Amino acid sequence: MSPATATSSRDLPHPARGDIRLQALLHALSDPMRLQIVRELAADGDELSCSHFDLPVTKSTTTHHFRVLREAGVIRQIYRGTAKMNALRRDDLDDLFPGLLDALLAAAARQAARLGG
Amino acid sequence: MSPATATSSRDLPHPARGDIRLQALLHALSDPMRLQIVRELAADGDELSCSHFDLPVTKSTTTHHFRVLREAGVIRQIYRGTAKMNALRRDDLDDLFPGLLDALLAAAARQAARLGG
Repeated sequence: MSPATATSSRDLPHPARGDIRLQALLHALSDPMRLQIVRELAADGDELSCSHFDLPVTKSTTTHHFRVLREAGVIRQIYRGTAKMNALRRDDLDDLFPGLLDALLAAAARQAARLGG
Repeated sequence: MSPATATSSRDLPHPARGDIRLQALLHALSDPMRLQIVRELAADGDELSCSHFDLPVTKSTTTHHFRVLREAGVIRQIYRGTAKMNALRRDDLDDLFPGLLDALLAAAARQAARLGG
């Protein structure tokens, strides 16, 4: 990573908008836990810390899920002090795939309402 | 399988509409080859035989991809004579997740146009 893109050794790598791929996006969202994270980020509309999410898995598994979402270009992860903050890359996704994120969120909500998830 | 649902030993198992899950659908479409199959079925709008698809993989891999799509509830596979025919389960998917299939197809077309896929 060049100094121009990494101002700190704690910066995490993110794909540029043009490098985000639909296949990676769908793979990232095909996991129930990751889909749940994305639904919460979308509902909140703001940055949320990793510790905000109360997932029924180990800390390392949680970290793994966030990394998959980041590497697929679904979320942006930024260190703020000691907290790792997460935000949906809605602008990037809406630009690349207009309407897709909303259709996915609507489908997830519909299924959760049907199955009581 | 009861005689009422399996009229022939060659009938293939399909999930009922209510058993189709968003996660399985997204997983099925997260593979480039399977996404391509679905795009061709959607573009054609009719049943297509497995041999119609000229995929750059072995026959057993092709069979695997069709099975994943069938078990996720994305396609219906029916034997007609010696041919195995494939059709999108558009009615089922549109009923469960209105707008999602079209959003996914539009996203795939958009990415293919952008990347020359």
